[in-house]
Amino acid sequence: MKLYTYFRSSAAYRVRIALHLKGLAFESVPVHLLRDGGQQHAAGYAAINPNETVPTLDDNGQILNQSLAIIEYLDETHPNPPLLPGSAADRARIRAIAQIIACDIHPINNLRVLQHLTRTFDLREAQKAEWYCHWVERGLQTVEKMLASDPRTGRFCHGDTPTLADCCLVPQVFNARRFGCSLAGLTTVERICAECDELDAFARAAPARQPDAE
Amino acid sequence: MKLYTYFRSSAAYRVRIALHLKGLAFESVPVHLLRDGGQQHAAGYAAINPNETVPTLDDNGQILNQSLAIIEYLDETHPNPPLLPGSAADRARIRAIAQIIACDIHPINNLRVLQHLTRTFDLREAQKAEWYCHWVERGLQTVEKMLASDPRTGRFCHGDTPTLADCCLVPQVFNARRFGCSLAGLTTVERICAECDELDAFARAAPARQPDAE
Repeated sequence: MKLYTYFRSSAAYRVRIALHLKGLAFESVPVHLLRDGGQQHAAGYAAINPNETVPTLDDNGQILNQSLAIIEYLDETHPNPPLLPGSAADRARIRAIAQIIACDIHPINNLRVLQHLTRTFDLREAQKAEWYCHWVERGLQTVEKMLASDPRTGRFCHGDTPTLADCCLVPQVFNARRFGCSLAGLTTVERICAECDELDAFARAAPARQPDAE
Repeated sequence: MKLYTYFRSSAAYRVRIALHLKGLAFESVPVHLLRDGGQQHAAGYAAINPNETVPTLDDNGQILNQSLAIIEYLDETHPNPPLLPGSAADRARIRAIAQIIACDIHPINNLRVLQHLTRTFDLREAQKAEWYCHWVERGLQTVEKMLASDPRTGRFCHGDTPTLADCCLVPQVFNARRFGCSLAGLTTVERICAECDELDAFARAAPARQPDAE
């Protein structure tokens, strides 16, 4: 398998965690989102990812886009350990936590939105950080409420093994720290991230450990 | 089943389509996103949806949030007709199309982001519409490329029966038209939406047909 990735992309980071949790070997193909006007926009890459974003997974010629779709595919093709364990209702809860991060926090803050905001409204760095942290803090507070109020939360977001929800949570919290957002009150979120940090799969997926890390 | 919905919410619209495709009866509970400072923020609703968004599905006491997670749940608990048919790769493609809409177009443009943009940057209506259409047009062009270039596209986004991808596409195109965005070049997208319009499930889910329509 080949993963088209950028060390700092939190969507690529999610898939890296999932690949390592599944124990799957993969080759990292770096796509530098800032260099050459954004290598994700180059014709060769756009041909395999019309959205011009990372990650893309090439599974023996099968080309897959969008991080959550890729992780669901990995979970269907390599069921152990399961990243969506339990009943339909359990799986719905895991997906809902993942989607609050992947739909309601991350896309509003990713590079292309920040670039467009800066160009269109002529933002200063401080305003950009304020925009970023507004959505991250609001979104992670929601995740904290979901985790703290539900007996299905265990050592990890759902039960005592890592799931799709943890694959999304850890990269988002990593980014929140990088941008200096407040993590005040996120007791359960921080406890779970500390649990994940103990696992080799999460450690190996971290931005600093990637071949393209700067 | 009870669906907490707002007639104009495109996330709620997706779930309404899925429920009708599955032939499931449900009671609509309107949550007015603009009235009373946003009924989604009321304590009673926030208790069942900590993200304070619609939709929420109450399936006999089982509370479910996030539209794609809800549709996956419906597909697992009521498998016929399947909204994620085929192989793991087929399902990954259907999910990727759905997620480009649900992650990369809609969240940047939904009510809470537009409200925050307007408050923070003091936008005029024309600037708001420009922001909206920028992301919708870019995103739908991506979907068009994915659909037009892939032999797996059929009468609908994936094959000849409606899937999760169509549940997401139709509401997004509805909103694009409502905001006056350009649909230039979206030949496949428009053809598929016209196919969907022929089906009773899509017609019954449309905003104008909801009990809370204005």
